[in-house]
Amino acid sequence: MQDLRASEIREILKLTQDPEVISFAGGLPAQELFPVQQMIEAGIKVLETEKGKALQYSTTEGYYKLRTAIAERMNNQGATNVTAEKILITSGSQQGLDLTGKVFLDEGDVILCESPTYLGAINAFKAYRPRFREVPTDEEGMIIPELERMLAEIENVKVIYVIPDFQNPSGRTWSMARRRAFMELVNRVQVPVVEDAPYTELRFEGEAMPSLKSMDTDGLVIYLGTFSKILFPGVRIGWLVADQPFYEKFVLVKQGADLHTSTLSQRQIWTFMQEYSIEENVARMLPVYRSRRDVMLETMERVFPEGASYSRPHGGLFFWVILPKECNSRELLRRSIERKVAFVPGGSFFPNGGNENTMRLNFSAMPEEKIKVGIERLAIVIKEFLAECCPQARSGV
Amino acid sequence: MQDLRASEIREILKLTQDPEVISFAGGLPAQELFPVQQMIEAGIKVLETEKGKALQYSTTEGYYKLRTAIAERMNNQGATNVTAEKILITSGSQQGLDLTGKVFLDEGDVILCESPTYLGAINAFKAYRPRFREVPTDEEGMIIPELERMLAEIENVKVIYVIPDFQNPSGRTWSMARRRAFMELVNRVQVPVVEDAPYTELRFEGEAMPSLKSMDTDGLVIYLGTFSKILFPGVRIGWLVADQPFYEKFVLVKQGADLHTSTLSQRQIWTFMQEYSIEENVARMLPVYRSRRDVMLETMERVFPEGASYSRPHGGLFFWVILPKECNSRELLRRSIERKVAFVPGGSFFPNGGNENTMRLNFSAMPEEKIKVGIERLAIVIKEFLAECCPQARSGV
Repeated sequence: MQDLRASEIREILKLTQDPEVISFAGGLPAQELFPVQQMIEAGIKVLETEKGKALQYSTTEGYYKLRTAIAERMNNQGATNVTAEKILITSGSQQGLDLTGKVFLDEGDVILCESPTYLGAINAFKAYRPRFREVPTDEEGMIIPELERMLAEIENVKVIYVIPDFQNPSGRTWSMARRRAFMELVNRVQVPVVEDAPYTELRFEGEAMPSLKSMDTDGLVIYLGTFSKILFPGVRIGWLVADQPFYEKFVLVKQGADLHTSTLSQRQIWTFMQEYSIEENVARMLPVYRSRRDVMLETMERVFPEGASYSRPHGGLFFWVILPKECNSRELLRRSIERKVAFVPGGSFFPNGGNENTMRLNFSAMPEEKIKVGIERLAIVIKEFLAECCPQARSGV
Repeated sequence: MQDLRASEIREILKLTQDPEVISFAGGLPAQELFPVQQMIEAGIKVLETEKGKALQYSTTEGYYKLRTAIAERMNNQGATNVTAEKILITSGSQQGLDLTGKVFLDEGDVILCESPTYLGAINAFKAYRPRFREVPTDEEGMIIPELERMLAEIENVKVIYVIPDFQNPSGRTWSMARRRAFMELVNRVQVPVVEDAPYTELRFEGEAMPSLKSMDTDGLVIYLGTFSKILFPGVRIGWLVADQPFYEKFVLVKQGADLHTSTLSQRQIWTFMQEYSIEENVARMLPVYRSRRDVMLETMERVFPEGASYSRPHGGLFFWVILPKECNSRELLRRSIERKVAFVPGGSFFPNGGNENTMRLNFSAMPEEKIKVGIERLAIVIKEFLAECCPQARSGV
């Protein structure tokens, strides 16, 4: 059933390849900002310096210099005690999710996640046939008493999966108090946690929050990082931070999954970090993303009908829109495509279904003018749809 | 137990990082032959032409132009009816093995494989907890009446895994008659086959054999190809050929596993195929590999004691050595390391254990002089060992 829904959406989204369709469906970073010239130079430098070695098999754990540079960077950002020995280079952080499933989940095991949660994680974990139990969340993150109750009542909970910063799809960031309470509970029950942190550095306002990993005293948190959003995603380089005994298990399953991540790409990224600056790259991206978010927010405020409410994310890539309960956003998507605008129906982000009245909008991948036009088109479709499926909502209920 | 053995070997093989150790343990292609300058130029061309697009997310199936080029190449080599639509780009053919496990195997299912078989495949499949049943083999490949009997007697056989050309570790190539009989049986019982073909093009003598995929009339064969041995392995680009309905399943599990394979690397390989020639690259490698095989064979003939027998591979990367039954090659490895020479104990290639009197020697990664010295060192250790563990063998029994 889930699979059918997923492939149905894929089919619909294929229609977005029509260049006239304005698509808020993807989660793409802005490719016009990628440091292309610097990557050309990094590529030349790596191959001229290392020659065939840069094209040879290499260790499963990853390029030691890159692991060291990542550890240093994380410690500079406030995570303590990260060392190269705890870092495993992955083929994107998506692979970190797959390996997590392989290490922790057997058929029938339970994984706890936020409700909603990242669609790609649901797909990665589903291959291992766990049961998903969704922990209720509010604007500050997982609701701790609910999580505590679920941990007490549900058997076979093997891992908790969370995205504390600018969550995909909700855009939500966990508060400091919630992080502390979460880690206190986790330490008490000693259950492993996967902290997925692709968007952390894409903060447009407010102060950076410490990672759960930085508050992890018992080696229970597996942290997933990636260069996809701070540099570019196309070379598929991410990393995983884990303490023993988990680390060794991750290395073994990674070896079975693809032996190791690209020798050349790892060295190119490391060279980029030496010769240039990820910080400068992020600083160049942030104002562009912030403006795009602002334009999308302003346009929604101007043209969306009252029945549609939406998040106000302080970073990341996404808005989360909630329509009246009666409105099915899958049906809305069909109509939107006809009007040349697309999004992802939010129901896909709930592993156990439901919540079909939600939608995810991406704001990072498109120039401001297109965002404006797209949101205006979408508003028209939503208004017509609300008038049909729930006339009372349209009049402001 | 298996895991313990595997990590024990890993620990021992770490000692081979000692530059004085001559290691026949790996399976590395000769990196001094990699086309480094051409890859620099391909990298520049891709990024100057495609700019940010070459660093962006891309489709799970892979770069269409690369898929087309691979299909054309396979059809030129005798595989019929391969089209881009049947090709999924993978992160090395190791990932093809992992995805195969995910698509076909649940806990307790049976996978049939050659005895011995590729260690990396055992590790990839093991994550899905199948039972391995080893099909007896001879110099021509799997013994078909044995396979037929096993297919009739064993329940829950989900897939057959084979390496028909220059098998890792045995170096064996299936005969034409055996291929025909195998496909006839497979078509009769309608069981899926994974044909792993990394070494096919590394043929030093004799005529190329048709792939099983080229003889597959019912869409039962999943073919795994890779650029690792015909170009270089470090960028982790392989491919998988499958017909429907398998193809669609592979795409779904690949998406969950790592979204897609490196956008940049796929385009670099495609550009290499346009601007240069894989055929020329292979033609440049073959004489070097052939000479190394010859030197290893000649040296073994000259210095190995009678109790040690070995294969005479017509291609690929490996020799397979069989010692008298009483000799445990794990113990032999410990002693060899002291004498600064290493190999992989053959027992690791039997998923259900046993056969500890075997060993795998790689000949591709080392200059001829070092091969000679290494085999001479190894011969001394083997002679001493045979004298201890089975004195009768030493005297020629």
